[in-house]
Amino acid sequence: MFSISRTDKRLAAQLQEKIDTKTKPPGSLGQLESVALKVGLIQQSLRPELKRPHMLVFAGDHGVAREGVSPFPQEVTLQMVLNFLKGGAAINVFCRQHDIELEVVNSGVAGELPKHPKLYDACIARGTASYLNGAAMTDEQVKQALQRGADQVARVAAGGCNVVGFGEMGIGNTSSAALLMHQLTGIPLVECVGRGTGLDEQGVLKKLAVLQQASACYLEDNNGNKDHNPLRILARFGGFEIAMICGAMLKAAELKMLVLVDGFIATSALLVAQTLYPDVLDYCVFTHQSDESGHRKMLGHLNVQPLLQLDLRLGEGSGVAVAYPLIASSVAFLNEMASFADAGVSGENVAAGEKGKSAGNGN
Amino acid sequence: MFSISRTDKRLAAQLQEKIDTKTKPPGSLGQLESVALKVGLIQQSLRPELKRPHMLVFAGDHGVAREGVSPFPQEVTLQMVLNFLKGGAAINVFCRQHDIELEVVNSGVAGELPKHPKLYDACIARGTASYLNGAAMTDEQVKQALQRGADQVARVAAGGCNVVGFGEMGIGNTSSAALLMHQLTGIPLVECVGRGTGLDEQGVLKKLAVLQQASACYLEDNNGNKDHNPLRILARFGGFEIAMICGAMLKAAELKMLVLVDGFIATSALLVAQTLYPDVLDYCVFTHQSDESGHRKMLGHLNVQPLLQLDLRLGEGSGVAVAYPLIASSVAFLNEMASFADAGVSGENVAAGEKGKSAGNGN
Repeated sequence: MFSISRTDKRLAAQLQEKIDTKTKPPGSLGQLESVALKVGLIQQSLRPELKRPHMLVFAGDHGVAREGVSPFPQEVTLQMVLNFLKGGAAINVFCRQHDIELEVVNSGVAGELPKHPKLYDACIARGTASYLNGAAMTDEQVKQALQRGADQVARVAAGGCNVVGFGEMGIGNTSSAALLMHQLTGIPLVECVGRGTGLDEQGVLKKLAVLQQASACYLEDNNGNKDHNPLRILARFGGFEIAMICGAMLKAAELKMLVLVDGFIATSALLVAQTLYPDVLDYCVFTHQSDESGHRKMLGHLNVQPLLQLDLRLGEGSGVAVAYPLIASSVAFLNEMASFADAGVSGENVAAGEKGKSAGNGN
Repeated sequence: MFSISRTDKRLAAQLQEKIDTKTKPPGSLGQLESVALKVGLIQQSLRPELKRPHMLVFAGDHGVAREGVSPFPQEVTLQMVLNFLKGGAAINVFCRQHDIELEVVNSGVAGELPKHPKLYDACIARGTASYLNGAAMTDEQVKQALQRGADQVARVAAGGCNVVGFGEMGIGNTSSAALLMHQLTGIPLVECVGRGTGLDEQGVLKKLAVLQQASACYLEDNNGNKDHNPLRILARFGGFEIAMICGAMLKAAELKMLVLVDGFIATSALLVAQTLYPDVLDYCVFTHQSDESGHRKMLGHLNVQPLLQLDLRLGEGSGVAVAYPLIASSVAFLNEMASFADAGVSGENVAAGEKGKSAGNGN
């Protein structure tokens, strides 16, 4: 369905040399250097550019929300979409701050949404079914969702965007993410389940019990056999917004865009995506390790390092948005800093006046 | 010399309520919420503003640089100042990116610097004395340096700035910072000494040996008694740029400005400052935990949490500059996000339609 290839690493040596001859000690820009290298490889350029950054927030409702897995009622999904459209949510503030174009996609909200220039209708149904009694989505719905997510990315790419982040809104979706994580990584369910938007200890125990029941029921439906097919796992436990983010990430990688990965939910979508197409990881930067307890282990499973750990647990793509300036800093230093030779700065163990050797700033 | 008082905490409850009634689960913006609270308290405002952010980079040379404690020759201090003035260093790039006004202060560079509109001459002497045979600075020089640092801050404050970060440039200054840390915190010297701009293992051992000799010589000069006077410790082991940053931080706290604290060197200046005036910490946000090994323990000693850990070890104020958007995000969410009541979003365990109760977004 997607055509994704690894980035061509033949440019890596030249990129690294450009990074190392900037007026700084080698390696001293830490993770910003890794990001610069990655973006250079994605764009196959020694002078990469970030063009028209977009944040696509996918919103969808979850049948399981009626089982008391969240402290918030399902209606909050729709209310928060309206808040996005009015510009009052955290993601609006952070996207405005960094000139990130914010668009909202109705993946399957349980209610009527108004027409709005920043709202795209990709609604599959008004909420998924509860996975307590079967699959949350049909196979056909999953296929549709992957395609509609991909279509959104194709649309922004056609408008000149080459860097995109994905946010989500959906009461109950940390439950989906926890189940996807458990099924796809084999990490015990109890380590995948956290407090979401703010459950107390008792609430987490109840959520865990509901999700254990869902897992047991799934196993039973498979005659006791573990299922390893990521799309069937996605259909069973996912949500419309999660499936669309999965399709969107894969399309972005196919189009050789930089994919900025947010927190627990967005990473659960990537778990599905990278099980299908492992090379998608070449296009991803992980922006923030969520305060949601399972996210650290999810990132560990992927063997990736997030840029930020600010204890955010808000969703919406907020981790991507607040981290965006660091991505821009990475590209900016690569393009704008002087080299030793340009600046006439002496190198390590080299007498002053001999210019252009490996060198840096002091301290 | 300075008049510094704690921030008035009576506004904290109102600020916290404003933070908690934003359309998000309580606490879900993590460290951004702590920063918002701090800035609100500093400015004694429910609607704080960041005005004309400045980065002041203090540059000075160190007598000890001749002892081989850095892989770079002393001349690099001057060469990097010229690089700052030409706009080619990392700190230039990041300050341009975030509209931070960058100014360089000659605290005591060992050489002739040109006139330049962004270069302020506060030169005490062309480099400190080596602390291997006595004090790096005289008591009078320390007093001058504190005053000249303070004067720089008074100048930018008079221009309307209320948020300021301090960077540094000085070959050999991680050695000074390590010695200040050791003397002021009691942490063993070996845990304070790191690889600076990029020493290898052998280089670190040599640096450690030189600094052990310096410590032993100091103890001898004090007839074997440990000295606890922070200004005498600063005079013995500090540098002109470190002393100026110390004075600058104290003046900024006196003027109730937000102080953005950079890495290992800047924090060593703060160690001196907070030993003299513990209340200075009320005005500080710690922007980045340096890859320099001692910095984590230095921050632990102060019992503070840095915003970023990006493995930077560059100095120049680069940690402050790349973290600045997070400070701006903190203030922006406080000022711009809708409240539950504004947005009509339902709260935890509250039926949809009842507006304005404690609520948030879902997941």
